[in-house]
Amino acid sequence: MSHSNIQIFDTTLRDGEQVPGCKLNKEQKLIIAERLDLLGVDVIEAGFPVSSPGDFASVEAISKIVKNATVCGLTRSVENDIKVAGEALRFAKKSRIHTGIGTSDSHIKFKFNSNRDAIIERAVRAVRYAKTFTEDVEFYAEDAGRTDNDYLARVCEAVIAAGATVLNIPDTTGYCLPNEYGAKIKYLKENVKGIEKAILSCHCHNDLGLATANSIEGVINGARQIECTINGIGERAGNTALEEVVMILKQHPTLNLDTNINTSLLYSTSQMVSEHMGIYTQPNKAIVGANAFAHSSGIHQDGVIKNRETYEIIDPKDVGVTESAIVLTARSGRAALAYRAKNVGYELTKLQLDVVYASFLDFADIKKEVDDSDIHKIIKSSSIHKEIISA
Amino acid sequence: MSHSNIQIFDTTLRDGEQVPGCKLNKEQKLIIAERLDLLGVDVIEAGFPVSSPGDFASVEAISKIVKNATVCGLTRSVENDIKVAGEALRFAKKSRIHTGIGTSDSHIKFKFNSNRDAIIERAVRAVRYAKTFTEDVEFYAEDAGRTDNDYLARVCEAVIAAGATVLNIPDTTGYCLPNEYGAKIKYLKENVKGIEKAILSCHCHNDLGLATANSIEGVINGARQIECTINGIGERAGNTALEEVVMILKQHPTLNLDTNINTSLLYSTSQMVSEHMGIYTQPNKAIVGANAFAHSSGIHQDGVIKNRETYEIIDPKDVGVTESAIVLTARSGRAALAYRAKNVGYELTKLQLDVVYASFLDFADIKKEVDDSDIHKIIKSSSIHKEIISA
Repeated sequence: MSHSNIQIFDTTLRDGEQVPGCKLNKEQKLIIAERLDLLGVDVIEAGFPVSSPGDFASVEAISKIVKNATVCGLTRSVENDIKVAGEALRFAKKSRIHTGIGTSDSHIKFKFNSNRDAIIERAVRAVRYAKTFTEDVEFYAEDAGRTDNDYLARVCEAVIAAGATVLNIPDTTGYCLPNEYGAKIKYLKENVKGIEKAILSCHCHNDLGLATANSIEGVINGARQIECTINGIGERAGNTALEEVVMILKQHPTLNLDTNINTSLLYSTSQMVSEHMGIYTQPNKAIVGANAFAHSSGIHQDGVIKNRETYEIIDPKDVGVTESAIVLTARSGRAALAYRAKNVGYELTKLQLDVVYASFLDFADIKKEVDDSDIHKIIKSSSIHKEIISA
Repeated sequence: MSHSNIQIFDTTLRDGEQVPGCKLNKEQKLIIAERLDLLGVDVIEAGFPVSSPGDFASVEAISKIVKNATVCGLTRSVENDIKVAGEALRFAKKSRIHTGIGTSDSHIKFKFNSNRDAIIERAVRAVRYAKTFTEDVEFYAEDAGRTDNDYLARVCEAVIAAGATVLNIPDTTGYCLPNEYGAKIKYLKENVKGIEKAILSCHCHNDLGLATANSIEGVINGARQIECTINGIGERAGNTALEEVVMILKQHPTLNLDTNINTSLLYSTSQMVSEHMGIYTQPNKAIVGANAFAHSSGIHQDGVIKNRETYEIIDPKDVGVTESAIVLTARSGRAALAYRAKNVGYELTKLQLDVVYASFLDFADIKKEVDDSDIHKIIKSSSIHKEIISA
């Protein structure tokens, strides 16, 4: 089976930046856009140009500096939105307009007070108009996750005929289960006339903790683009985390799905985005959390010391983390203590280790983490100190 | 189709507490155990009694105070571990010993320097010995995710014959894709002789961001217990998040899988665990993050104000959050501003709103979040202030 390339569409600067308190100024957006370009994302969604003068200026400035990625601007299916996005993107080497409209019954009725046929007409008009600014037009069927597949396929056919090059199938509310979302992509891949002229894109939200899994099921079932953000930031529970989907595809070579991401920049990019947005990742965040490669329990530490592959599936260097930190706590076993003691200069015999380990446990029951200077203290205060240093 | 009950096995106090820096003292563990009991978890894994004197004392104390849940202690397949766990659990109304051993080739070779048949013998001996302390014995096949299904089935058959009541199938390294993990559970359900005498349990790690999805695929394919922690805490990238799997099952009634959790206690339980452990959840954490129910973008806010169901699939009250906060930022639309202005006393006409909205955007381009007092300032400094207050 041949390899397929999965396009990584980064929306950190658009869907990510919508997070309360995460607003970036133009200079910050430029720094992040340059880094995303270096990271190797295929598309940078730079903003929603019509939404504010600041956003327009940022999209325009990003368009001027990005070297490799396509620069994309969001619009509603509204003529002025599209015109303004076209203007903001006019300096981009490669530009894309991302337009669309809600297609679920809930959106059609409550948001637009409209009907299915009228929505298709608006969608087609928007795509045709966007094509007057750029060849590359992506269409989003908002709330596709709750849109019935038959109508969704009709929408897709109509916008492909109007020239859409990418079809974004968002699970806007984060409600789909992985098998449901995968089945939806498969249905579209098999039933939309003209689907060979466009690629399907996964845009998943994390309200139930399933964004990453849904995106992966999407590409397994034929989608060829994933929309995601650094650290999974985004409104409510956020978007698909870029670092998670990229590492899943990398660690599962039998899927035959590759990306263009330079994974060794993932950790530093995560840190950069956290710092600029002031939104820190939790320690147990997959791939980029502070603890992602830390081992503390005795059973695990023993395994890692014997053979890293026993517990770690990712080489920390692959994501730009220089080494997995072995942290000592009251759960740490003898092997971890011996390993760390050796690192700071003490070669303990089994009997010596028994004595030091008992002191270590008492100490660790009080102090949460035991660092190198604590190890010196524990050994110096133990009855075997003389014996060890004379050894 | 009849409903099935999914047992929630909480390991916040064992696998969760192994997180670097998360160590709790006995009093804190008792407070959390009482809360977990109130929350309605079926099993509380209280600790690893042989690992330290502090852990033994905590498991013993928790055994005495828990009213409804089964109290469980972890052991290796080592006689002394099991004996000590049996002692620590002797006051529990319902007790369970959780014993096991690594079954993947990587574990058998590197960790135990052993072979497949010898590992089965050790497993069987451990289960038999544990049965002398309690009827309820759970067996874990560590690194089951990387154990081939055929050998894993042999291990399961042997320990069921020895009396195991629950079979824990851990994806120890967090490597499995949802369809792989689901297929593994299905294989065991269909191929293990005597499987009707035990239940299968999902224990997934989040190294690739897939723990929740894998657990859900597990129960869809026949498992009847999920092992999880509050906030998904745990070593490295953590464990399956209790709040996520519980809300997925609740929000997807067609799965016909129920839990005994009182979901209205989820948010406060999450806060309690965060505070005691000093490990805070990121704002975009699903279900319990600070932003999980906050809406800031204009398009979304407009939708939520018209009809909550347009964007929210979970009623915040269902998880104990009193209302979804509408946060104003430069991405907010006119509808959100009008809604918040009305809340603080200003009924704006469309033309008035145009004027105030322009000032609001300039203001919001500088200040990240606009609160109620800012709305007063913006309106008071606008040219239409006189007109509005005289209206």
